[in-house]
Amino acid sequence: MQNIKGTYDYFGQEQAVRRKVQSTLREVFECYDYAEMETTILNEADLLSSKYAGGEEILKEMYQLTDQGTRRLGLRYDLTIPFAKVIALNPAISQPFKRYEMGKVFRDGPVKRGRLREFLQCDVDVVGISGPEAEVELMQLAAEVFRRLDIPIILRWNNRSFLGEVLGAMGVPEEMKPSVMLTLDKLDKIGKEGVRQELAGKVLEPEICRQILDFVDLKEPTFEQITSKYKLDNERGAREVQILQNMLQRVGLQDICIFDPFLSRGLSFYTGTVYEIFDASHDFRSSLGGGGRYDAIIGQLVGREDIAYPTVGLSFGMESIMEMIRNRPIETNKPLVMVIPIGETVPEGLTAAAALRNRGIHTRLADNRRKLKKTLASVSAESIPYAILIGEDEAASGMVRLKKMTEGKELTLILKEAVELIIQSCEG
Amino acid sequence: MQNIKGTYDYFGQEQAVRRKVQSTLREVFECYDYAEMETTILNEADLLSSKYAGGEEILKEMYQLTDQGTRRLGLRYDLTIPFAKVIALNPAISQPFKRYEMGKVFRDGPVKRGRLREFLQCDVDVVGISGPEAEVELMQLAAEVFRRLDIPIILRWNNRSFLGEVLGAMGVPEEMKPSVMLTLDKLDKIGKEGVRQELAGKVLEPEICRQILDFVDLKEPTFEQITSKYKLDNERGAREVQILQNMLQRVGLQDICIFDPFLSRGLSFYTGTVYEIFDASHDFRSSLGGGGRYDAIIGQLVGREDIAYPTVGLSFGMESIMEMIRNRPIETNKPLVMVIPIGETVPEGLTAAAALRNRGIHTRLADNRRKLKKTLASVSAESIPYAILIGEDEAASGMVRLKKMTEGKELTLILKEAVELIIQSCEG
Repeated sequence: MQNIKGTYDYFGQEQAVRRKVQSTLREVFECYDYAEMETTILNEADLLSSKYAGGEEILKEMYQLTDQGTRRLGLRYDLTIPFAKVIALNPAISQPFKRYEMGKVFRDGPVKRGRLREFLQCDVDVVGISGPEAEVELMQLAAEVFRRLDIPIILRWNNRSFLGEVLGAMGVPEEMKPSVMLTLDKLDKIGKEGVRQELAGKVLEPEICRQILDFVDLKEPTFEQITSKYKLDNERGAREVQILQNMLQRVGLQDICIFDPFLSRGLSFYTGTVYEIFDASHDFRSSLGGGGRYDAIIGQLVGREDIAYPTVGLSFGMESIMEMIRNRPIETNKPLVMVIPIGETVPEGLTAAAALRNRGIHTRLADNRRKLKKTLASVSAESIPYAILIGEDEAASGMVRLKKMTEGKELTLILKEAVELIIQSCEG
Repeated sequence: MQNIKGTYDYFGQEQAVRRKVQSTLREVFECYDYAEMETTILNEADLLSSKYAGGEEILKEMYQLTDQGTRRLGLRYDLTIPFAKVIALNPAISQPFKRYEMGKVFRDGPVKRGRLREFLQCDVDVVGISGPEAEVELMQLAAEVFRRLDIPIILRWNNRSFLGEVLGAMGVPEEMKPSVMLTLDKLDKIGKEGVRQELAGKVLEPEICRQILDFVDLKEPTFEQITSKYKLDNERGAREVQILQNMLQRVGLQDICIFDPFLSRGLSFYTGTVYEIFDASHDFRSSLGGGGRYDAIIGQLVGREDIAYPTVGLSFGMESIMEMIRNRPIETNKPLVMVIPIGETVPEGLTAAAALRNRGIHTRLADNRRKLKKTLASVSAESIPYAILIGEDEAASGMVRLKKMTEGKELTLILKEAVELIIQSCEG
């Protein structure tokens, strides 16, 4: 018996921390007015493998199965296609429509560090806003999520149309642009030499390769340097970059959101802004999240290219976030009270525990067969602030002994009073 | 494009209510000191189809698939087998171990009302307590969950060993007991006549059938009537019933938890107490949840029949609960503030919205291209208590206009003050 490679069970402190991170995400998503959606894990294989869906790379990794009726099914490999499906199947949904979804997705690919076969995806998307305010809002949201998680970040952003215009100005043919973008996207990982080698393997004129490497040599060029060098002021993508840059300045995000002209992200379905989130210290190299604008995909999947479905999304990388906070001492939900039945007082112990639990107090019930000394030692070891002891004498007289662990002194009182004292101390 | 039969997407108000129910369950589970576990959806087919696992009925409904390495996989059809797997794979887990899990399970079976192919299961289980205090705690927990959901319930309980002893006293052969139990379990649904017909189809002596029907004729016999009629005082199951009945009385659950000698639940893996939760009014006939004690299954799956893994569990039926509260007016998370940029003030609107959102205030940002009158009408229609209006004059002077919708009057002030006023009003 073993787990499938690339799949994990979570429990104990690890799961408590995972839940805490998810709760933080959820709280921020809700404050930002995104409403939750839960889509199906099982889908028609035809939907998931539509030519407008995930692309060849992902489709190779799709888990396929058949049901007893021999229909071809697939497990979702992302939350974007299911989101598009819901929009398509529910024409009454009015735009703008803001939703988040946190759920498992499945990819039958090679298992590496940080790449699992079954993993949690946390996505926020808005359909129906074509202006850059949607991007800015998602960047504000990302900044707030990582502020709450106490992870300083840098969000690097670009615009795929703009990058296309830059490459066009160098003479890169339209059909070669996606491939060159993919190479530039790896600049941080493979360096200029790596880029040179990859370019050498493509069908590109040497002069064009030289120009691309000149571009790379600019190191961290500003938007203004690029537009003036390549004369792009009036192109659509350039204007989008300009407008977004101004808006980020006006909302005070210019220090967190850094323009990065080499970024393009892997997926070709992005049509405008793209972004990726990194640890500000860059000690942790993997992406902590990313996303971008994909204005075409929903319309294509819906089969209504006449209706506009301008869409922007942002995906958080749960496994990367967990990796970054793995060694922190994170406070999770711990019991506030240990109820300790001594002797034949288990029913009274259960009654006392329920009285606290039903008022919202996390309460542990001790095993009455364990030695009292051992039980009290575990109360101290786990820093549980209160103990309620119930011996047979107390049970017979309807009383309990309340012990505040930091003080050591005991009060004998009726259960109701003990419950009130504990609740008051929580609120105080 | 369509959804797979028996699978549903959830969003909008429906999902908000589902989330609220799940949060209620989670809060109660945590107060009762159960910690969350998340197990894998993908599992080895061999594990899921182990002879100690779900039984033939369920195995027929298991979704099977292969990965690219042609390993045989299955989608989990419950949360019990994955729980047992985690116990087996992690011998360091110390007992008693209390966990809950809320997650999707999959069954490729016939789709009926309330029976889905992909559905949420919410399970609470404890391994390591052989005494009835574990059952009582789960019953207290069930009572509290449904109290918070404002659904009056009756929990019907029995003990499979005890029922076996009753049938044994009538002369039902050991190997026929599970089948007779299944028939008795349906008494409420099919009536005495139905029971008679089902019994006629089994290989049973007429005298035994007559005795079983006599038993059914007792209608709602007490435990004492049964033990005296069948002389069972000293049998193991009878003693367990006696002890549990006493404990339920002592913790005050005797009115909610009703002894029902005909109950057995379908699954043969239960070894002792079984229970099922119903709408107290009985208007809603489906089970709202159920569970029982299964002391053997984990040891069998672990392959260590020498170690005891006494286990009790309780499963909540999310779809039944949703069915029962479907028509209630349930309050869900709604925006508290609408920020309305008027004219070219979208960045100031985004800044104002983020200032509120980052303080935990659910805030909606209006579309500045929409007519102000329409926007204000939607603020009223959705009962959003505050509006923050930002015209170009306000933006230029760093101010906002705060409007409390019930009062109609407006205050012009700096954003920070407006945020504080709103936060104070929430706390007050």
